[in-house]
Amino acid sequence: MQYVAGMALGHEPTASEAVPSFQTSPDRYRHWKLRFDGEVARLSMDVQEEEGLRKDYALKLNSYDLGVDVELADAVQRIRFEHPEVRAVVITSLKDRIFCAGANIFMLGSSSHPFKVNFCKFTNETRLAIEDASQHSGLKFIAALNGTASGGGYELALACDEILLIDDGSSAVSLPEVPLLGVLPGTGGLTRVVDKRKVRRDLADFFSTVAEGVKGKRAVEWRLVDQAVPKSKFEQVVADRAKALAARSDRPKGETRGMTLQPITDRRFLKMKLNPQLRMAELWMRAPDAPAPASPAQLLEQGSDAWVVRASRELDDALLELRMNHLDIGTVVLRTEGDPARVLEHDRFVSQHQDHWLVREVLALQKRALKRLDLTSKTLFAFVEPGSCFAGSLLELVLAADRSYMLDDPKRPTALQLGPLNGGPLPMSNGLSRLQTRMLAEPQRVKEVLSHQGPFGPEEALAAGLVTFTPDDLDWDDELRIALEERASLSPDALTGMENNLRFAGPETLETKIFGRLSAWQNWIFQRPNAVGERGALTLYGQAGQRPQFDVRRT
Amino acid sequence: MQYVAGMALGHEPTASEAVPSFQTSPDRYRHWKLRFDGEVARLSMDVQEEEGLRKDYALKLNSYDLGVDVELADAVQRIRFEHPEVRAVVITSLKDRIFCAGANIFMLGSSSHPFKVNFCKFTNETRLAIEDASQHSGLKFIAALNGTASGGGYELALACDEILLIDDGSSAVSLPEVPLLGVLPGTGGLTRVVDKRKVRRDLADFFSTVAEGVKGKRAVEWRLVDQAVPKSKFEQVVADRAKALAARSDRPKGETRGMTLQPITDRRFLKMKLNPQLRMAELWMRAPDAPAPASPAQLLEQGSDAWVVRASRELDDALLELRMNHLDIGTVVLRTEGDPARVLEHDRFVSQHQDHWLVREVLALQKRALKRLDLTSKTLFAFVEPGSCFAGSLLELVLAADRSYMLDDPKRPTALQLGPLNGGPLPMSNGLSRLQTRMLAEPQRVKEVLSHQGPFGPEEALAAGLVTFTPDDLDWDDELRIALEERASLSPDALTGMENNLRFAGPETLETKIFGRLSAWQNWIFQRPNAVGERGALTLYGQAGQRPQFDVRRT
Repeated sequence: MQYVAGMALGHEPTASEAVPSFQTSPDRYRHWKLRFDGEVARLSMDVQEEEGLRKDYALKLNSYDLGVDVELADAVQRIRFEHPEVRAVVITSLKDRIFCAGANIFMLGSSSHPFKVNFCKFTNETRLAIEDASQHSGLKFIAALNGTASGGGYELALACDEILLIDDGSSAVSLPEVPLLGVLPGTGGLTRVVDKRKVRRDLADFFSTVAEGVKGKRAVEWRLVDQAVPKSKFEQVVADRAKALAARSDRPKGETRGMTLQPITDRRFLKMKLNPQLRMAELWMRAPDAPAPASPAQLLEQGSDAWVVRASRELDDALLELRMNHLDIGTVVLRTEGDPARVLEHDRFVSQHQDHWLVREVLALQKRALKRLDLTSKTLFAFVEPGSCFAGSLLELVLAADRSYMLDDPKRPTALQLGPLNGGPLPMSNGLSRLQTRMLAEPQRVKEVLSHQGPFGPEEALAAGLVTFTPDDLDWDDELRIALEERASLSPDALTGMENNLRFAGPETLETKIFGRLSAWQNWIFQRPNAVGERGALTLYGQAGQRPQFDVRRT
Repeated sequence: MQYVAGMALGHEPTASEAVPSFQTSPDRYRHWKLRFDGEVARLSMDVQEEEGLRKDYALKLNSYDLGVDVELADAVQRIRFEHPEVRAVVITSLKDRIFCAGANIFMLGSSSHPFKVNFCKFTNETRLAIEDASQHSGLKFIAALNGTASGGGYELALACDEILLIDDGSSAVSLPEVPLLGVLPGTGGLTRVVDKRKVRRDLADFFSTVAEGVKGKRAVEWRLVDQAVPKSKFEQVVADRAKALAARSDRPKGETRGMTLQPITDRRFLKMKLNPQLRMAELWMRAPDAPAPASPAQLLEQGSDAWVVRASRELDDALLELRMNHLDIGTVVLRTEGDPARVLEHDRFVSQHQDHWLVREVLALQKRALKRLDLTSKTLFAFVEPGSCFAGSLLELVLAADRSYMLDDPKRPTALQLGPLNGGPLPMSNGLSRLQTRMLAEPQRVKEVLSHQGPFGPEEALAAGLVTFTPDDLDWDDELRIALEERASLSPDALTGMENNLRFAGPETLETKIFGRLSAWQNWIFQRPNAVGERGALTLYGQAGQRPQFDVRRT
């Protein structure tokens, strides 16, 4: 039944693309050095050419693959949790005259279409996490470009608060994807250039078509970087700017004890079961089995095994595994089990202490894991059954689902319950809560639902618009089975496109623009023979004497 | 040099896809009947099966091809210009039990990828013109669904102000593209369902996956239609609602004399020259050669040959010709010639009288033609040379361009000049003026530039950020030649994606969501083997006993 179209284009990789793990820690980093100096952390890229995830490419010139980016995501996360004293982060490189050459082209060229798309999604999420840390954790980022930053290298810089470029007569910033590879910069570059840095659109057009990029004074005038700094003064200016940015941070003064993030080697609050026949993964999330911490200090004491931290990290990890290693899975069924009162108790703890530096990191972690769910290209169905605990932060799973089914059986009662985290602290990429997005037609109902006392039974939940369907005991099994079978019979591509359009109603943000507009165009281009065909630009990159041949028809 | 990848998938049509003409008039309509009854017009779809643009498909069940949609676009335009007395338009069908089955599947299945994409773009522009007429011309639209409206049929209804569905036990609204064809509804359906009609996202998910759609009471409860009306009362309710909507219109009372739109058989204010070697089309737009009308009454007297009407209609027509019939053209060079003072004089006339019903139609026409330019997937370069007249509404061509070049030669002066139409009345799809979009970084400069007295010479224009480059006489020819050659050497797909991301910085609207997010996903899907491959769902549609085979990997 399965046939793989990419094979015709020679793009099915021979090596497995499965990712061994999304867990790492500084002592295991291969490609980054993380150094701390009081309120400033220094995150230096030093990619090891031969230590890529696959062996069919070499990571030259600080180019990266997914493994490099997993370390970057981990480093940012750890600075947030483990180092409350850090107020500014300098991102730079240990290579001479090169900051970062971007995603490795040979890796991209030899990757399957789904891998390319998922790789770009992960790197986008990592850059958005940097911006989230700046906006919500008071952690300011400086890109200290000690050499050329091209493609994904410049896109990493674009995610930082400030960009300093060394002015040595040769180092430039560039987005050479269009002229060299026939694809788009895949990590938010075009969007951030015109929407975040507000580079004038005609200058952005020119910039995005010259492979050598722009340097020095012109890069500053065009708003591509904030400063071009002579080599002799570079380190001093970087240090000064880091200090200035640190001064604007609202991270706690004098706090040095952080929470060490222990590796997730097993899953305690999340169970996953694969059903290949229905191409379905069932996830069960468990309520906490212990009372909520009495105080942020106690949470710190408990460490990263505390439910509020660990449950979200496990969800995050499971989603990445599903996306990258289980491409054939089309539907994710979201289930919960445990005591809803416990969930709400933990939520209240988070809500009450959200101004504490550690608790706001917890909240940001929960928010990002749920955003990762919204952005996962799998159908999401939530099943509300007896014994479930869809309350508060776990109710967000129902609200994130493309559809939800709630059993309506007086003998086996089910319930949903709202809590303080449903009212805004866990926004989607569009800036609205899932409840607001759901109730765009009747915004006043959001308030009504939030002020409802106690749990919602099936009938109330249906009337309030919280669930899609409430089959009774007789219909339950059949209705679910049919829904799952029908979903499995539909075109996986059409579902991905459909879900991407229905999930994000309402306002658009930089974030939704990157995942909606930019990524969709990139996915289109990643599929086009002009990029990935036998004579496509991406395929032929680096092959001496070979020039791409284009189907010249404009589409 | 050219190779055509689509051929491998068996999707290169044998019949030519060139469109004979975008000009029509009611006496030549084949597929629509336009009837007037005082303040209500009735536009009835009655598609002739055998009169499609190509002969390899039959337009059964009021399904449509581009020819049908060209007539619809013309009808809406003519009601606006020729029938000031009309305040409400009823869109219905003359077929029994069927409103419209949407775009013809066999036409889509046998069309090339660029044709599919351009077809969808045109139909989207036509539906947006309906919404524009409602918002800006006081012309209200009722979709009177006398039978089932599926796919593009329902999407046409979604563009109307109100949707009335006959409640006869069988007629439904549906978006069956995902379940039946493995593609998305291509004419704004998903966006309008959740963003315009604000259907709850889980209900929208269910609705978009059931081929048979939703009817009767449920369709109303889910906000898919406004009323479900029993057959016996249908005509009466339609008439009542038309009357009620007409009462909300601000079109002139007692005005019955409109402006007949004469066919564009030759072009007087626009010259087009194709250069196949550089894959370039040069457009020259000419300034008016006569004074502006003294009053709206005089404009009415002059008829559609008046510059303010004819120049925009010619631009619109040329853009459609370029998009559909000259796929190999990658770059459009925008030039002007004539007296800039004349342009500004005509602009002032439009600006001063924009509250007059006819002049506001003129302005809306100019706006739509310029939006069509923004949305054209060709590189736009503007060349400002001696003798040009980039002033006011024609300056918008420079502001719409991806890049602009202005000659800086004291012996052969060039100039740009702003006028009243640059300050807002000609917005882009994102709701901002082209000047605002260009100056997102420094919004206060928009006002400065607008208040500048007299023309901008090259140096001033460069300093004000109105043009990209100002080469001198020595560099001019070389710099332009190199820019054109370089552009012609880049991947046409990458350029389309890049331009679509750089042109629309700033806010997103329903309109930009449709062209950015929705269309990009649709283009991706239109390229995927799961839709268009040998065993793809679109390819196999209607072939008895054939079921699509999917690559099940989720991307």
